[in-house]
Amino acid sequence: MPPAAEFRRLRVVLVATRNPLNLGAAARAMSNFGFLRLRVVNPYQIAFQEARSAVGAAALLRHAEEYASVAEAVADCALVVGTTAGARRDLTQPPRGLQEGARELHRQLQSGDAALLFGSEKRGLSNADMSHCHWLLRIPTRTEHPSMNLGQAVAVCLYELVRARPAAPAGEAPKLATAGQLERITAFLLQALNASGYVKPRTSSSTETKVRRLVRRLQLPADDAVVWLGMLRQMAWKLRQK
Amino acid sequence: MPPAAEFRRLRVVLVATRNPLNLGAAARAMSNFGFLRLRVVNPYQIAFQEARSAVGAAALLRHAEEYASVAEAVADCALVVGTTAGARRDLTQPPRGLQEGARELHRQLQSGDAALLFGSEKRGLSNADMSHCHWLLRIPTRTEHPSMNLGQAVAVCLYELVRARPAAPAGEAPKLATAGQLERITAFLLQALNASGYVKPRTSSSTETKVRRLVRRLQLPADDAVVWLGMLRQMAWKLRQK
Repeated sequence: MPPAAEFRRLRVVLVATRNPLNLGAAARAMSNFGFLRLRVVNPYQIAFQEARSAVGAAALLRHAEEYASVAEAVADCALVVGTTAGARRDLTQPPRGLQEGARELHRQLQSGDAALLFGSEKRGLSNADMSHCHWLLRIPTRTEHPSMNLGQAVAVCLYELVRARPAAPAGEAPKLATAGQLERITAFLLQALNASGYVKPRTSSSTETKVRRLVRRLQLPADDAVVWLGMLRQMAWKLRQK
Repeated sequence: MPPAAEFRRLRVVLVATRNPLNLGAAARAMSNFGFLRLRVVNPYQIAFQEARSAVGAAALLRHAEEYASVAEAVADCALVVGTTAGARRDLTQPPRGLQEGARELHRQLQSGDAALLFGSEKRGLSNADMSHCHWLLRIPTRTEHPSMNLGQAVAVCLYELVRARPAAPAGEAPKLATAGQLERITAFLLQALNASGYVKPRTSSSTETKVRRLVRRLQLPADDAVVWLGMLRQMAWKLRQK
């Protein structure tokens, strides 16, 4: 099976990966299934260097792009999806099943760029990482042993994306706002909330995370994002004048 | 998801595995997806010993059964399925796709025991190994890079078996905001836009219509609607104070 054109629109984003073997394994699965765009956020540097010299998928790793933050790594993506294995109790929203989620992600790839995030081996994605995600994808592991090996999690998710492909050609999904637009909307909204006294200084950092998630859940069309940005900018400006 | 009863009827058989990390990874994927019966045929002995002391899935590895030949390892199984990645030229019969094959294998597990064979990292299953198989299963990797990491191949095949189980009842759709909530959100947003100077008096009625539609397109979950309402009420109140 040749790599599908729409697969070029997916960035696989590995956040804070520590083990070079896992970086190499993730890259290999990507190459196996035809996803060639890897981004890494704050990898353990030695691991990243070692993995780059590993056999198999070497070109893919050489072209991997490195970022200092999740926000930067996903800024050009219109859909950001996080992955989680098993039933984490601290999730603020129920994750989608892998099957349903892959179908949705594949639909988005028809028309725009998307990112699929995998957290570190030890802790998975942090709450801050997840606040950049529109929604989460859950791999259906069993309750007694939910946590998957990173390379295997990548392989299973990408396989499901390949599998989601031959399904009936879906109608074109609306073009969604990019993560960069959503982050600007979040920033103006936070300014306005601060200036209006909605945010208490004591709780401002947890508010920021909550507001970021709230904005991601809107699934804003790109055109509407421009309007919301204009409205919030104006309100924030006026509120600051007081 | 609890391990399915029929999964107890599957033996995952690793033939001539050389790398302890791959043995460990295969065992971990088995445990993740609820397949607990591992058999190994002629493993590289040191690898087998090392893998047994590895973390995660330790019990599963401890109970692994060791055999000197494929024939003995599959003797009690009514269906024997081999795995292959990519398009090997030396196959005597065309392999089944993973999706179709997993469905068939799952059907067999309803009533009897079956074995799923994985070959060595370097060569996969030999022709002699394959001669013990009723048929072969092919993982849909791309032609340019067909060969998968062993642990990842096991993960993908077992995931497809979990997926082949009769569909679980779909998750409940999120409860959306009522029209009444949306209208109150619209009203506070309009108040805030007016007070901030975003709305020009001349165009205020067309703005109202646009904003109402904009808010409807958000598809707000009911819980989020409460939060948005609180935020907008506060901003509108503060802006009106000027």
